Amino acid sequence: MPTTLYFAPGTCALASHIALEEAGAKYDAVRIDFSANQQRSPDYLKINPKGRVPALVTDRGILTETPAILAYIAQTHPQAKLAPLDDPFAFAKIQALNSYLCSTVHPAHAHRVRGSRWADDAAAIAELKRKAPQVVADCFDLIEAEMFVGPWAMGEIYTIADPYLYTLCTWWEGDSFDPARAPKLAAHRHRMGERPAVRRVLAAEKK
Amino acid sequence: MPTTLYFAPGTCALASHIALEEAGAKYDAVRIDFSANQQRSPDYLKINPKGRVPALVTDRGILTETPAILAYIAQTHPQAKLAPLDDPFAFAKIQALNSYLCSTVHPAHAHRVRGSRWADDAAAIAELKRKAPQVVADCFDLIEAEMFVGPWAMGEIYTIADPYLYTLCTWWEGDSFDPARAPKLAAHRHRMGERPAVRRVLAAEKK
Repeated sequence: MPTTLYFAPGTCALASHIALEEAGAKYDAVRIDFSANQQRSPDYLKINPKGRVPALVTDRGILTETPAILAYIAQTHPQAKLAPLDDPFAFAKIQALNSYLCSTVHPAHAHRVRGSRWADDAAAIAELKRKAPQVVADCFDLIEAEMFVGPWAMGEIYTIADPYLYTLCTWWEGDSFDPARAPKLAAHRHRMGERPAVRRVLAAEKK
Repeated sequence: MPTTLYFAPGTCALASHIALEEAGAKYDAVRIDFSANQQRSPDYLKINPKGRVPALVTDRGILTETPAILAYIAQTHPQAKLAPLDDPFAFAKIQALNSYLCSTVHPAHAHRVRGSRWADDAAAIAELKRKAPQVVADCFDLIEAEMFVGPWAMGEIYTIADPYLYTLCTWWEGDSFDPARAPKLAAHRHRMGERPAVRRVLAAEKK
């Protein structure tokens, strides 16, 4: 059974998609149609009971959650050198950034588009939407000032932190975040967009 | 320089504290006084610019984010066998649960106590507080039904998923979650509370 990534365009599944491509993995990519609410269909809920993407179906079983999938891709494709697998501290620094992206930055963004996860009242949902750009901007200010090393997220070597950081930076315009506010991250986003693997994945997700 | 964990009682830093104790690590635990807002003090912001706990100061540098710290403790104390370090899939399953806890369960809880992170309006903050127990309950229903294996989180072997899951389950009463609703998780919480390492850490955090 080949590895299969379930994704939807515009979601954080892009990070895992890029990592698979960078790793030279053999995989199929299957699109889930969010406009038809396919992520909540009985068939998809059997794959991921959370009703979210990404999900990675492997011959050992199914993995979810971007930081876990990214580390798995790095560990199962050591020749691609997507993480310092023999250095627990350097590996943990990558995991710390990826964990911050999933625990804080992604939820900050989600309050603009999916406030109904945390509130039923229309006025409260509108308030979450109003404040979200400010919360998102605080996150990226912190990444720019304190976490990003450059030229890649963790320094000289491209790692599994890069596609995840890039993915969340592709949401800037929707969150009214001005790229000029984070020049190092803006340069990183541009640098990422020029990588052949990223171009191939973006083209594949547009089909 | 000894490893130092910065923690505050009642926070997710408990997970890292327990893991250090289970690993037999040499460490100091330093309490940050949230009632005095010490997590936002200039001295602490030099350690963790996010103004949160946990932070783990090592001789290589500083680590933040619970899933990253837990994996680091497991990898640097292999004799403690807190994670299947030679099995990327099994390791990823642990990381997937820990990632879900940090990205979804912890934020669900935070909406009850820290709604001002995402809203300024008092009525909106009240709405987040009102709905939070329902969102938290949905998370634990899913963990009980789909993720928890038993008797430990990942099955027969105790791993770094256990102290993190336990930590968030200690917040149940505050979130009005009835333990009877998740009997497997309730038994796990009781089982965790009987471990000598957990008892030592809970006693140390109470001092």
